[in-house]
Amino acid sequence: MADSASIPSTPLLKDELDIVIPTIRNLDFLEMWRPYFQPYHLIIVQDGDPSKTIKVPEGFDYELYNRNDINRILGPKASCISFKDSACRCFGYMISKKKYIYTIDDDCFVAKDPSGKEINALEQHIKNLLCPSTPFFFNTLYDPFREGADFVRGYPFSLREGVPTAVSHGLWLNIPDYDAPTQLVKPRERNTRYVDAVLTVPKGTLFPMCGMNLGFNRELIGPAMYFGLMGDGQPIGRYDDMWAGWCTKVICDHLGLGVKTGLPYIWHSKASNPFVNLKKEYKGIFWQEELIPFFQSVVLPKDCTTVQKCYIELSKQVKEKLGKIDPYFDKLADAMVTWIEAWDEHNPSGAAAEKPNGTAK
Amino acid sequence: MADSASIPSTPLLKDELDIVIPTIRNLDFLEMWRPYFQPYHLIIVQDGDPSKTIKVPEGFDYELYNRNDINRILGPKASCISFKDSACRCFGYMISKKKYIYTIDDDCFVAKDPSGKEINALEQHIKNLLCPSTPFFFNTLYDPFREGADFVRGYPFSLREGVPTAVSHGLWLNIPDYDAPTQLVKPRERNTRYVDAVLTVPKGTLFPMCGMNLGFNRELIGPAMYFGLMGDGQPIGRYDDMWAGWCTKVICDHLGLGVKTGLPYIWHSKASNPFVNLKKEYKGIFWQEELIPFFQSVVLPKDCTTVQKCYIELSKQVKEKLGKIDPYFDKLADAMVTWIEAWDEHNPSGAAAEKPNGTAK
Repeated sequence: MADSASIPSTPLLKDELDIVIPTIRNLDFLEMWRPYFQPYHLIIVQDGDPSKTIKVPEGFDYELYNRNDINRILGPKASCISFKDSACRCFGYMISKKKYIYTIDDDCFVAKDPSGKEINALEQHIKNLLCPSTPFFFNTLYDPFREGADFVRGYPFSLREGVPTAVSHGLWLNIPDYDAPTQLVKPRERNTRYVDAVLTVPKGTLFPMCGMNLGFNRELIGPAMYFGLMGDGQPIGRYDDMWAGWCTKVICDHLGLGVKTGLPYIWHSKASNPFVNLKKEYKGIFWQEELIPFFQSVVLPKDCTTVQKCYIELSKQVKEKLGKIDPYFDKLADAMVTWIEAWDEHNPSGAAAEKPNGTAK
Repeated sequence: MADSASIPSTPLLKDELDIVIPTIRNLDFLEMWRPYFQPYHLIIVQDGDPSKTIKVPEGFDYELYNRNDINRILGPKASCISFKDSACRCFGYMISKKKYIYTIDDDCFVAKDPSGKEINALEQHIKNLLCPSTPFFFNTLYDPFREGADFVRGYPFSLREGVPTAVSHGLWLNIPDYDAPTQLVKPRERNTRYVDAVLTVPKGTLFPMCGMNLGFNRELIGPAMYFGLMGDGQPIGRYDDMWAGWCTKVICDHLGLGVKTGLPYIWHSKASNPFVNLKKEYKGIFWQEELIPFFQSVVLPKDCTTVQKCYIELSKQVKEKLGKIDPYFDKLADAMVTWIEAWDEHNPSGAAAEKPNGTAK
């Protein structure tokens, strides 16, 4: 039973946020989230066999898309949406009509803080997204906008206004988000450390963005949240969220937007199979050694003033500089373009991207 | 009474670390630190009236320097050591013969963690300094070298070795380290949030380094830990540690060294007078608006391979680019050179700085 104190009587941004869930199974996990998610609209992206029926607990307001729906809605452009990989979730980001997205995996449950109180993860993400980020200078007391905190001595006053927050990256108690080699080496490691902090990932610094527990402002950064080509027919998996995170961070840095990480925690219930993961990851593990220097050195021209323009430019640089690593990156660069074309078709008022502070739709 | 569990039976680095304390009063505060500090050697830098006698509780092993001592030891070069300001502490860094320094203010007491256990701040600093930093890529589970943590999925393997840690910046419970304007606006704000994290300040990101609770590796970064010209006869105060922090961070980034911040906390007992602070700070508050962009854009040439060379080069750039803000920066640039000259005189085997991983003394 949820602690009623942690459920706001009027859910924040109730009509401005969609919850996107990729899944291959019945969504019983939603029962535990009912007090927190029920006021919101869900977009369920069914992966795998479209003839299977996914059961959603009663009382939730949702729309569900399976592969047939994706193919019908996007036509030939459906090729940019991964199949048999949770990367398919980004289809939900594209067809949402809301300003904010929260996405969560179906093996993630409500965590408790050290006092034993249930954590309303969604509420914390919304708080993170609604207050500014501080990417230009590090604040040693973490997020200066949290209650009981502020900017410390020596923090330049001109930087205290901050910048709009585009991304809120939440963490995981219990099963940490480790790669296959680390899973294999430390099969019993559990994350039990509750770090009571939210902080801005500084400008110019890349981070590994995990898609398990993630919020973002669709109007500010949506078109960059493409989870790439993974799974069926592709040479890698488990790099979908990483790819999206690297692209997103580079574009946020260019456009002066902020990325926060830290709270909230969810309870990650089950480690995926490290042997299966190793097979999905092994190419990514050596490719990323070239991808990181690439993203660290990306420069976007000044005339890239929208997320779409930045993303198209990035796709060109991917083709030019990563294509030589493997033909996969040529294909990925093309898919990046297809993704933006599909995004613009389904979000015709591109004006939203040009006016990040407006409410245009 | 300290919890005996938090006092290691063999104190870490007992013969390799000095504790530097700047003070103008009797050091009764050491009583509370006795279980943690007594095994170590103290360097006490007495500020203000040298004829005053500072009482040190019995049983501590210490050397004490007042202004007369500093003048006698450094001769004309004593001009680079501030008077009537806790910036004088850096004299202690210079004359130490140890590899590591821990410095603490005399209004800082032993804090407790959320379980009520006393925090052995020094032990945590030593742990921070003895394990690597990760400045090139952000790890979302914070310090990957802490027990129960690791690098998360998507963290490049080639970066997991990390780099040597030069600085460990600790935090403060109770009175936060706010500037005068924030103190005036929020006189009752107390820091009660215990954030159980240590993290590396990413490469290219500046941070406000506070000198209240600070550890560093003297061999790796000592000559950059100059606390500038503050206090008596100078136009500003309370920017001593900030100055040292900006210089240190830029040099650490250049030399491939790491800076950690977070744990350990100390209990900061008393807020200084905000009106007095405002008087000391007000020039710094607007100067820092130009200092930060300056430090953000500093480039050190490749042939600056030691901290001393970096620091001399930085002093030139300070003179050239900041001298026009105020003649104070000309004077400061000269003092930076004097500081290095004095450092080298008192640390004749400069070889230590050339071989950061060696044990040369």
